[in-house]
Amino acid sequence: MIQVVKCGGQVLDDDALLTAFCRDFAALEGPKVLVHGGGTLAGRFQKALGIEPVKYEGRRVTDEATLQVVTMVYAGWCNKQVVARLQALGCNAVGLSGCDGSVITASKRPPKALSDGQVVDFGWVGDVTPDSVRTEFLQLLLDNGLTPVLCAINHDGKGQLLNTNADTVASSVAAALGAALVTCFEQPGVLRDREDPSSVIPLIDKDLYASLKADGIVADGMIPKLDQAFDALGRGAAEVRICHSSALLTGGGTLIR
Amino acid sequence: MIQVVKCGGQVLDDDALLTAFCRDFAALEGPKVLVHGGGTLAGRFQKALGIEPVKYEGRRVTDEATLQVVTMVYAGWCNKQVVARLQALGCNAVGLSGCDGSVITASKRPPKALSDGQVVDFGWVGDVTPDSVRTEFLQLLLDNGLTPVLCAINHDGKGQLLNTNADTVASSVAAALGAALVTCFEQPGVLRDREDPSSVIPLIDKDLYASLKADGIVADGMIPKLDQAFDALGRGAAEVRICHSSALLTGGGTLIR
Repeated sequence: MIQVVKCGGQVLDDDALLTAFCRDFAALEGPKVLVHGGGTLAGRFQKALGIEPVKYEGRRVTDEATLQVVTMVYAGWCNKQVVARLQALGCNAVGLSGCDGSVITASKRPPKALSDGQVVDFGWVGDVTPDSVRTEFLQLLLDNGLTPVLCAINHDGKGQLLNTNADTVASSVAAALGAALVTCFEQPGVLRDREDPSSVIPLIDKDLYASLKADGIVADGMIPKLDQAFDALGRGAAEVRICHSSALLTGGGTLIR
Repeated sequence: MIQVVKCGGQVLDDDALLTAFCRDFAALEGPKVLVHGGGTLAGRFQKALGIEPVKYEGRRVTDEATLQVVTMVYAGWCNKQVVARLQALGCNAVGLSGCDGSVITASKRPPKALSDGQVVDFGWVGDVTPDSVRTEFLQLLLDNGLTPVLCAINHDGKGQLLNTNADTVASSVAAALGAALVTCFEQPGVLRDREDPSSVIPLIDKDLYASLKADGIVADGMIPKLDQAFDALGRGAAEVRICHSSALLTGGGTLIR
């Protein structure tokens, strides 16, 4: 089965973590796809260029200058750094943005009207669904022993680049390919007690998720992660695992089913 | 026959020129590869980030911070801009750096000892030859109706990205593929009189080149361009044409044979 692995910005920001992660990802057997973020580096470059980062509900409001920075950072530096490291480890990686082979076509997010009458315009932010993914191109690469490495810069098919969410890209690609999704983050899994890293919940199904939410055990940033996991399953992903970036080969973390 | 087209930084810096060039390149029939530069934008970003550009014999001395900038600009913004535009024009482009599919492996340029005893260290600058090109991956893409779009960021196969020369990448790729090379620049071809754009020399062979050099008609920046053209022919390129970026479809310019 194809494995789609998502690695977050915190791995890309830490040379030791990235080295270890690339070593593990290169050693992962079978066909695989990597999807990476790169958030904090983009924020640093925005500031160095005198652009004040603006976020709304965790999404970067993306004007023209910001689109240029995130494209440079995600599709340029982060993507090529990861690909060059994987190549050195014998993994024949190919770095891609959504425009490459038109592998992902995103839709520009419309401005959002708030209850107080104000309107949030996200600018060049795009949304992605499993229907956005051109699986034939990914399959051509996989069939030839190549490993696609996707960043979260996509296009609208009409010449416009769009900044999208790497988690959504990963779950959409996994769903479109019927693949297993592995989401790596800074915790060892979904925790019963956020202060206790040994309290990983090994398996969450829909019923358990409902009760964990009702009891306040799963809250805040974990809710969109788990919503997305169940959404990916509902749209065709074979399974979803949430784990620490160091647990790629050891199989720990939380399985979502 | 495969056509390898090189377009210079001046096209990427001018929105109207780039739009016209992409339209013509997309309309070019048959299998094709695009190689692009992006020089002046990289210099602007270096300055905006407080890095003073240093060049030696026209090559950008590339320290770690400069490598990051040129990778962001060439492999990120320039490459994805061009690919997104070509996709909108119905050309199924795939943007690549040398690390992608390990399509080009460059060698780090050793420091150069000058006659006065000083040493120039180019930093993360790489050199490319036709042997550096993995034609199987390019052929796989071409056989599947995809159009590779290469920037001049390559890797050494050991995890290090290297800044290389886009003209050398284009001539090496053309030679390795036995392709026709079309080098687009800001003049309508090699001129007999540099002040007269109508004085294009339609055909140059080795004998004529020798006499043009002896007479001082070909001088300065044209010498490396023509040396590279003859080198590409000697190493396997089928033909070389030097023309203005607007003459891609009309067939003008100077043919090198």
